[in-house]
Formats: sequence, C-alpha cells, structure tokens
Amino acid sequence: MPLQPTVALAQFVLQSRPEDVPARVVHEAKRAVLNWVGCAVGASRHATVGNAIAALAPFFGPPQGTVLGRRERPDILHAALLNGMTSHTFDFDDTHLKTVIHPAGPVASALLALAEHGPISGQAFLHAFVLGVEVECRIGNAVYPSHYDVGWHITGTAGVFGAAAAAGKVLQLNQQQLVWALGIAATQACGLREMFGSMCKPLHPGLAAKNGLYAALLARQNFTSAEQGLEGKRGFANVLATERDYGQITEGLGNSWELLENTYKPFACGIVIHPVIDGCIQLRQEHALKASEIAAIQLRVHPLVLELTGKTAPRVGLEGKFSVYHSAAAAIIDGAAGQEQYSDEKVSDPEWIALRNKVHAMADASLKEDAAHITITCSDGRILTRHVLHAIGSMARPMSDDDLLRKFSRLCAPYLPGERSDALASAIWTLDTRADAGELAQLTVPAA
Amino acid sequence: MPLQPTVALAQFVLQSRPEDVPARVVHEAKRAVLNWVGCAVGASRHATVGNAIAALAPFFGPPQGTVLGRRERPDILHAALLNGMTSHTFDFDDTHLKTVIHPAGPVASALLALAEHGPISGQAFLHAFVLGVEVECRIGNAVYPSHYDVGWHITGTAGVFGAAAAAGKVLQLNQQQLVWALGIAATQACGLREMFGSMCKPLHPGLAAKNGLYAALLARQNFTSAEQGLEGKRGFANVLATERDYGQITEGLGNSWELLENTYKPFACGIVIHPVIDGCIQLRQEHALKASEIAAIQLRVHPLVLELTGKTAPRVGLEGKFSVYHSAAAAIIDGAAGQEQYSDEKVSDPEWIALRNKVHAMADASLKEDAAHITITCSDGRILTRHVLHAIGSMARPMSDDDLLRKFSRLCAPYLPGERSDALASAIWTLDTRADAGELAQLTVPAA
Repeated sequence: MPLQPTVALAQFVLQSRPEDVPARVVHEAKRAVLNWVGCAVGASRHATVGNAIAALAPFFGPPQGTVLGRRERPDILHAALLNGMTSHTFDFDDTHLKTVIHPAGPVASALLALAEHGPISGQAFLHAFVLGVEVECRIGNAVYPSHYDVGWHITGTAGVFGAAAAAGKVLQLNQQQLVWALGIAATQACGLREMFGSMCKPLHPGLAAKNGLYAALLARQNFTSAEQGLEGKRGFANVLATERDYGQITEGLGNSWELLENTYKPFACGIVIHPVIDGCIQLRQEHALKASEIAAIQLRVHPLVLELTGKTAPRVGLEGKFSVYHSAAAAIIDGAAGQEQYSDEKVSDPEWIALRNKVHAMADASLKEDAAHITITCSDGRILTRHVLHAIGSMARPMSDDDLLRKFSRLCAPYLPGERSDALASAIWTLDTRADAGELAQLTVPAA
Repeated sequence: MPLQPTVALAQFVLQSRPEDVPARVVHEAKRAVLNWVGCAVGASRHATVGNAIAALAPFFGPPQGTVLGRRERPDILHAALLNGMTSHTFDFDDTHLKTVIHPAGPVASALLALAEHGPISGQAFLHAFVLGVEVECRIGNAVYPSHYDVGWHITGTAGVFGAAAAAGKVLQLNQQQLVWALGIAATQACGLREMFGSMCKPLHPGLAAKNGLYAALLARQNFTSAEQGLEGKRGFANVLATERDYGQITEGLGNSWELLENTYKPFACGIVIHPVIDGCIQLRQEHALKASEIAAIQLRVHPLVLELTGKTAPRVGLEGKFSVYHSAAAAIIDGAAGQEQYSDEKVSDPEWIALRNKVHAMADASLKEDAAHITITCSDGRILTRHVLHAIGSMARPMSDDDLLRKFSRLCAPYLPGERSDALASAIWTLDTRADAGELAQLTVPAA
C-alpha cells in the first residue's frame, strides 16, 4: 500500500540529505531567496507593514529577529509574520505557475527567523528551503484548481505546510513530531481570495510563515495533532477542496523538484497580467506610441485575468495590481510596470484613468495563462497587434540571473546603498558556503 | 435594501449601549464567565498547555497577561491563546446548542487579555462579552449545519469573529475599522474537525481568541481588509460553507440574545454524550448497579453521537471524551463523568475496558440531540431501560447557578484553596459593579 500523504511527506523531509538535492535545484533556491529578500526590502516601508508594526510592537517578545530592510527587532514569530508580509506586499514575489502559489515567502520567512534564533548553516538553510517549497507545492498540486476555485488564497493555505516542514527539518523533529507539525499546520490553513486588493493579501503569506513556525515549535514539544492532517476525512484536502489527487503528493518524491517550476516576475503585479504588459511594452517601443494617439486597446486574455484582475476603477495603488486596465495603461504611458507604476498617485492620475478607460478585455479560454492578444487602435486609424505566446518571466522565457539581480538592486536601492545591496546579493549567491544563514538578515538592516 | 451582514454586525456592536442589554442576559454572561474561568483553571496543568508554554515561552513579549490558574506572565496575545486553549481542554466549557459553538472561550480570552492591558470596567467587559457572543453565534447560525458538516470546528471558525468584535468594541474602533477587523478575522478563520481527540482541538478556541484580538489590533491601526469578509463572493460564508442564511445574522439584532441559548455541561466530555451518561447514572443509582452485574448496554442515540464520539478504543484520556463507550462505562462504574473519569489511567483500566466493550450504540435519527434510549441487560436476566428526553445541562434542564458554582469549585479546588476559589466566584458574580475586570485574572493565580 502506498504511504499516506502526511506520513510520506514527513519521511521524505526527514530522510533527505543535502547531497540528494541537485545543484541546479540549489541554484534555483538561491534565485528564489534573492528575489524574496529584494521584494521584502523593497516593501519594507509600505503602510501594510508599518500599520502591522504599529499594532503589534507592544506585544513583541525578545529582540531575536529582523524585519528585512528595517531596524526593529521583534521576536522570531513576529519576524516571520512581518517578512512573509513584506515579501508579498508588492505582489512581486515568485510564482509556482502550476498552482499560482508564491512559494518563497512562507518558507523562507519561517526559516530565516529560526536561523536568527540559533545559527543554521547556509547549506542547511537552502536544503530546508528546497524541502519546504517541495511540500508546499506538492500539496498545492494535489488540490489545485478546485481549492483555489472555492476561494482560498493558496499561498496562505499551502504555504503554512511549507513553513512547518522547513522549520521541522531545521528543528530536527522526529517523524511523529513532523506528522503533528503538518497537522497543526493543516488546522491553521487560512486566507481568503476575497481579501485580494487589501492589506490582508500580503498578510496571508505572513500568517503562513508564522503559523507554520508555530506548528513546528509546538510539535517539537509533543503538542499533538491528528495523524492525517492532510488526507483525513475531516482533514485539509477534504475540507478545503472539492477534488484532490494524493498522487501529486506522493509520486516521485525526491526525484522531481517543484522549485524548478518556479518563476519570477518582471512586473510588480498579478502574474496573469504579465502577457498584456509585455505585449503593450513591445508595441510602445516598436511604434514609439504615446497615450494621446490611442483610441482603444482590445485585449483577449485567459479567463483568469478577468476573474483576478478585472478591477476597472482601482482606487489605490494596491488595487491597481489587480487591474489589467491600469496595467495596460502603465505599459503604454511609462513603458514599465514596476512598483512605481502602482502608486496611489498613478491610479488617480487623470491621464492614466483616461487611457485605462479605453482598454477593453475579453476572456478567451483558448489562450494559455502566459499568453495574450493585443489590438491597439490609434486615432489616426492605424491598427497595431501583438500576440504574446509566452510572457517574459514565464517558464518559457525565464528571467536570467542578471535580470533577477537588476530587479533585486532596484528594489533595495532606496534603503541600501549600492555596495550594501551588492554585498547582500553576493551573500545570497554564496549562501551554500556560509556558516550562518541568519547573517543575511543583518545585511538588510539600513544604517541608523 | 437590508444592510450587508458585515456592516450590520459592525453597526450593531458599535451602537449598542450597556443599558440595551437585558439584566438576564448580563446574568447569563456572568454564568458563562464563571464556567469559562473554572474550566480554564481546572485544565491549567494539563500537558496541552504545558507543552504549548514550553514551545512558546521563548517568544513571549512583555509580562502583560495571565494564564488563568498559573504563574507565567506572557504578553496578552499569548495569554489570549493559552486561556482559549485551557478553557476548552477538558471539553467542559459552555455550548450554544443550535450550532455546537463553545462561545465563551474565544470571546472572554480575548477580552480578559485586553482588560489586563488597560483597565476595562466590569460592566464594559460583560457588555463586550455579550456582543462578541452575539456576533459569533449569529455567524454560526448563518452557516450551520453545512459549515460544520464540511468539517470545520465551528468554535474556532466562528469564534474568531466573536473575539474580534468584542475586542473591537473595547478598543473603540470606528465602523470602517470594525468592518476591517471582521474581515481580518474572516481570513484567519480555521480549525478542522479532523483534530478532535488531539491537543489541536483546544488549540482552536485559543487561536480564535488570539487571531480575533490580532484582527482588532491591526484594524485599529488601519490595516485594511475586504469590506465584505462575511458575504463577499470569496468571503467566509461562501468559501467555508455550502449553504448560508444571512437573515440569521441581520434579523432581530439587538432584540434577541444568543447568550440565552447557552448551556453548561455537567459532564467533562462532548455534549452529545450527555443524555447517555445522564441515563446510565440514573439507572446506576436506582438499581445500585455494579459493572460486574452487566452483560450488555444497548444505546440508541442521535446520529451525531456516533459521528463525533464513536471511538470504541480510546487510547488516552482526551480520546475518552470522544467515546460514548468509555463514557457509559464511567457513568456505571463511577456514577460520574468529571475530568477524573477521563484520565489516561481510566481509559487503560482493564475493568473499564471490559465494560466499555459491552456497550453497543445504534444511531436513531428520530431522537433529538439531547435525548437517548438505554437498555441494560444484567447477567441475572434483568433488563433495565431508561429513555432520557432531555439531558441534564440541556436547555430544558439547565444547570442552576448553584450547580455551576459547585462545578466551578471542583475545577478550581486543586489550585485555589476554598477561600480563594470563593473570592474568585464572588468577583465574577459581582463583575458588573467592579472597576477593573482584569483583576479577575490575578485572582486565579495560585500562591507561590
């Protein structure tokens, strides 16, 4: 009889040795960590985290952890929460396209917190990160898409398992304890898609990191849970999804690596809008297009684009990230869709509003998620079209290490002068040779 | 157009004045608080909370709060977590029978934490408690039974709203902030029924208390959520239930009081087993029955009894609470079903195992949840029967104030000498006249 999923994952995580992980998977882990740190530092002054710190600082425990890019020193549970949040605040983090999980935030935030609490070698950090992402994405694979369709923010709900598994590996839980940790994670899985566009969206990976860390810490003290947190009759997969495929969890464990399916965004918004932005930027460059020349923009897009990013009149920058209309306008007006294009000012700018009102989008189920078809009608009668088959940042057109480094440097620039940002990047690229992974956190703290 | 549920609840909570709450509702609040404190103190040395404190103490913040019945001083977020846990550890807490929510734990644990942080009058505490229970139970009413049938532990999932609402009232949030608090609560709603019989079951009301408190504290700093956390397309009621009735939330707000539907358990186990225990104790008393005389015990019970408490061979005391078989044996052997009857020793005692193996239970959908039919066949051929129409502790046969006080005193006895326990009970009965509700917590702390 094949192993039950919960036990199978626990055994896999505990039996895995660093040398079992192929070098290219370890390299992908570094890319994911680089992107995660960059996103977290970049969003470190956003009101989301500022408000959260204002609310929670009176309850912080001993100064154990770091909020990436900031000078506060919370206990590690709050550090995990806050870093999970900042890394997703710009919606600029990594994406496991098969499930739309953003894998790094929950796992890395829990791990870095532990690394600051008691030294963990860079190798052990990367190994546990790979394993956490594997657990998180396999659980996501098992319940996607029904779980997501019901309304769960899968980065929160699957992320908590990844954080628990990674933390459990580092804490050297035994098998029974790791089974319990996965159960304690299961019973804390949360995060509703209704929250998209509010500060609660980035809260979800923060909760996943914190709650997963909680789960591993509790299990280490023999705090018990059910034995079948994932597959039990009233367990995660039955309660939070309408269909499930446990083979996605158990088959090929240790032979395939979900981290190799990870992607990184060139644009600071929902991944599903990337093909539209990519195509609009291409047309802008090729035709030196100006907003004033445009009469209409017709988009044909994957149906998820309208479901997830159909906000026609975003009121604040955060909502702009869920507006394919605003994003198309950004691509035409600024030729870019970085964090600057999703400010409160930009979504309220009359020129931007005028252009986004000329954008019409239609769902086309024949298109892949990384494709889009764009038709721009100019006032002078010209008609420009572009069919994007694979958006930049997709599996077919991945960001290179240099692309990622440039993105990282731009995100860090406001808070870490060039040489500080370079040192941090270099520490991440050489993480597997470093004795103390927790030092990464200190390298993000700006000078007083 | 009727108000949307989220806004309706926020308005109700903020507009309610203490004088709007009838005296008997306030009295019921005191009964619920008394029962809550007793359960929490009684379970204060259980391994569940011991393990949790061992795991979490290194991350405690400033010494702001009290773990009822113990000497540790955690920050108030951890205090809310731990008191929510201990109050449910014995499964001896109150029950809103319409929804099987245990209302007091999540709400009172969040409130007491706030009361310890900054003084709250006894009147304000009881008022916020009544409102929190109202919010929690109305949301439960709106999604029960489909929400519970899917597999959610409703005390956790509905409890987080009650904690958020009560905390939001005390923190004097404005309407927008309270709407956000309810949204932040919605997106943290968690707790799977799969966990029943493990330490995670009492964890759920603890999480509800802590997460609800989090929600109110975050909202006070303008941490935003969706506006329709309850009724939005991807909100709580649509994602966590298959059917819903928003009229249960909005109709008669302020005119009816869910707290009047609250009940208290004479027995330290699942409410659904109470009729069986009640009937078995009656037969034992009337016939001076001994276990050795019994050949078989036949039970006809509501179907939920087997679904929730069908464990035929519990291995530990906690599982015994989910075994109608063990519970019937307890009623016959000890004539009682207090916490002592659910120890690890009792569930492993050969005499108890022999008797529980003679118990047979059959579901009978024609029986009400507070009814049971018992047939005991004696070795000498006698057949004894009892049809319990309404179990003790049900709405029809409620525990009196004196019953509750005796239960409270028994629970407190191991840790608080008689006069300490009496002073604590007296403080609760006079809570509406006291200047500082937080003093209750200090009254539960045992002498060094």
